[in-house]
Amino acid sequence: MPVHTRWSDLDAYQHVNNVEMFRLLEEARITAFWRHSPDEVGEDWPTAILETGPHAPSHTFVAGQQIEYLRPLGFTRTPVRVELWIGTIGSASLQVCYEVHDGAPGGFPRTGPASGADPYVRASTTIVVVDAATGRPRRITDDERAAWHEFEEAPVAFRR
Amino acid sequence: MPVHTRWSDLDAYQHVNNVEMFRLLEEARITAFWRHSPDEVGEDWPTAILETGPHAPSHTFVAGQQIEYLRPLGFTRTPVRVELWIGTIGSASLQVCYEVHDGAPGGFPRTGPASGADPYVRASTTIVVVDAATGRPRRITDDERAAWHEFEEAPVAFRR
Amino acid sequence: MPVHTRWSDLDAYQHVNNVEMFRLLEEARITAFWRHSPDEVGEDWPTAILETGPHAPSHTFVAGQQIEYLRPLGFTRTPVRVELWIGTIGSASLQVCYEVHDGAPGGFPRTGPASGADPYVRASTTIVVVDAATGRPRRITDDERAAWHEFEEAPVAFRR
Amino acid sequence: MPVHTRWSDLDAYQHVNNVEMFRLLEEARITAFWRHSPDEVGEDWPTAILETGPHAPSHTFVAGQQIEYLRPLGFTRTPVRVELWIGTIGSASLQVCYEVHDGAPGGFPRTGPASGADPYVRASTTIVVVDAATGRPRRITDDERAAWHEFEEAPVAFRR
Repeated sequence: MPVHTRWSDLDAYQHVNNVEMFRLLEEARITAFWRHSPDEVGEDWPTAILETGPHAPSHTFVAGQQIEYLRPLGFTRTPVRVELWIGTIGSASLQVCYEVHDGAPGGFPRTGPASGADPYVRASTTIVVVDAATGRPRRITDDERAAWHEFEEAPVAFRR
Repeated sequence: MPVHTRWSDLDAYQHVNNVEMFRLLEEARITAFWRHSPDEVGEDWPTAILETGPHAPSHTFVAGQQIEYLRPLGFTRTPVRVELWIGTIGSASLQVCYEVHDGAPGGFPRTGPASGADPYVRASTTIVVVDAATGRPRRITDDERAAWHEFEEAPVAFRR
Repeated sequence: MPVHTRWSDLDAYQHVNNVEMFRLLEEARITAFWRHSPDEVGEDWPTAILETGPHAPSHTFVAGQQIEYLRPLGFTRTPVRVELWIGTIGSASLQVCYEVHDGAPGGFPRTGPASGADPYVRASTTIVVVDAATGRPRRITDDERAAWHEFEEAPVAFRR
Repeated sequence: MPVHTRWSDLDAYQHVNNVEMFRLLEEARITAFWRHSPDEVGEDWPTAILETGPHAPSHTFVAGQQIEYLRPLGFTRTPVRVELWIGTIGSASLQVCYEVHDGAPGGFPRTGPASGADPYVRASTTIVVVDAATGRPRRITDDERAAWHEFEEAPVAFRR
C-alpha cells in the first residue's frame, strides 16, 4: 500500500531515520488491520476488522518487532510502497511482515513479498489481541482468522 | 491541499497534538514551495520554485509562527485539507497563511481563505530566503515574486 | 529550567527543527504546571498544581501559540535552559511565556526574562483550563491564581 | 544510563509508543558511542569514541534491530534507566544490546544485563561502521575494539 513519508522523517543524515521507518510500518499496519469509520475516505481493506479506540472490546499490543535496513531511503513526495502480509497466525497473536519499496507511479500491488528490486527494509511485528476488559490476550476469532487467512504467506526471511 | 495525518499525531488526549499541527503545516508548506524532482509523483505547484537541499543556492529559514487552535482534531484516514495562501511578500521574506479544514471526499480546493465551516486551526509562518553561501537573507527574485503574487490575499486574521 | 534535547530533534539541516522547538516548550510547560506524582523524581515546582490525566477534574487546552526564532540551535548533550514565566492570567486562561537559552554548566536560573545573550527562541502559549465533565472553560481558582501570581511578569515582546 | 522520556512519547493509549521506544534506545546509543564535544555537559563515556557529523571520517549505519516489549511504560518525569552493553563485535559491525528499566531514585548502574525486576523492553541494534569517503563498511580499529571490549557480555536473549 502507499504510505506517505514526511520531510521530517529525515534525520540529520538526510535519510529516513531508522526509528521513523517503524512509524511508516505502524501507519501501514493500522490501515490494514483497524476497521474504518463509515465516513472515512480510503480503501476499505478486507483485513481491517479490528475495532479500535478506548471503548472497543479488544485492543492490540505490539509484543515484538524485527527489522533489517538494506539501503537508505531519501526524501521524495512519492509515497513508498509497503508490501504487507501475514507470516503466522497464532492462538492470540499475529505476525505481520513488511517490505518497503519504491512507490511506482503505475500503482501499488497490494500484498505479498516483492519480486524484483531489493526493498529498503524488511521487517516483522508480532501483535497480540487483548481483551480490553481483562487486559489479557484473547483467542483470535473464527471471523478474524477467516479474514486474515487469505493473506498468509511465508514469514519474512532475515539475512542475519 | 490534502495532507495525510498519522495515528501517531494523536497525543494521550486522543487529539492531534498542538505541536504536530505545525508538522502538518510544514508538510503543506514544503509541498507548496519546494521545487519537485522531475521523477516525483504528485501535483507540481506553480509556487514550488524554491530549490532545496544541501547544495541548493538558497535556503529558507523559519523566522516566526503564530497559530490559533479553534477546535480539536481527532484521527481519521481522510486527509485534512490545508488551505494555504500568501499574506505578504517582503523584500526577503514571505508570510505563509493557513487554515486546516476537514478533507471533503469531493476534493480539495487549492488555495485561499475558507468559506463556510470553521477551521480547526488558523496559522501563519514567516519564512526568510537565505543565500546558502553567505547565510544571510537575500532579495526575493522577480521570478519568485511573479510566481507567488497570484496567491497573495489578505493575511490570516487571528482572534486574539 | 533544563530541557533535554534529542539528536532526533534535528532536521535535515542539522538544526533543531522549528516544529520540535514547540516540543521542547511543551515539555517545559508540563514540568512547570502539571502536578507531580508523589513518586516522581525531579524538582516539584510551586506552579505545578494542575491535575492531569483522563480522570482529572480539569484539562488544559492549548488555544494559541506564537514564536520567534532568533538563531538556529545545533545538537548538544547539554540541556537547553528554558526560561518560563506567566505573561497574563485571565479568568479561564493563562499566557505562558518562554525564552530558550544555552544551558550553562553552572546552573539554570528558574524563571523570568533572560538578561544577557540573545535567546534562540521567544515564544508564548495561551492555555485554557477546561472542566473535564462539561468540556467548557472554567474559572481559574483562587489557589491557582495565588500559586501563579508570583511568576507573573511582563508578557514576552516579539519583534514583529 | 538515565534517558529522559517526554510526555509526547505517549500515544493515544497513554503508554510510551512502541516506535518511540526505539527513540529512547537511539538516544542511549548516541550518548554511549558518539564522542562528546569538549564543551558538552554530561558524563564522558569510555565507549564514546566515534566521531560524528557531516565531516567525520566515519559514519555509522543501523543495519538491523530487534525488540521485545514485556510490559507497557506509562509517563513519568523520572528518567528510565537504559542498561546498555555490547553483545558481539564483528569485523565492521557491533551489536548493541539494551534493557529498559525503571529509573531508580538512588542512581543508575551503568552497564550490563539487569538483575532483578523484569525490564519494560529488551532490544538489540546492529550498527555498521562506514568509511564516509567511500560509503563502504570499514574495519573496526584496534582502539575501538579496546575501548568496547570491556563492555562485551552475552547477547540479549529474546523469548521468541
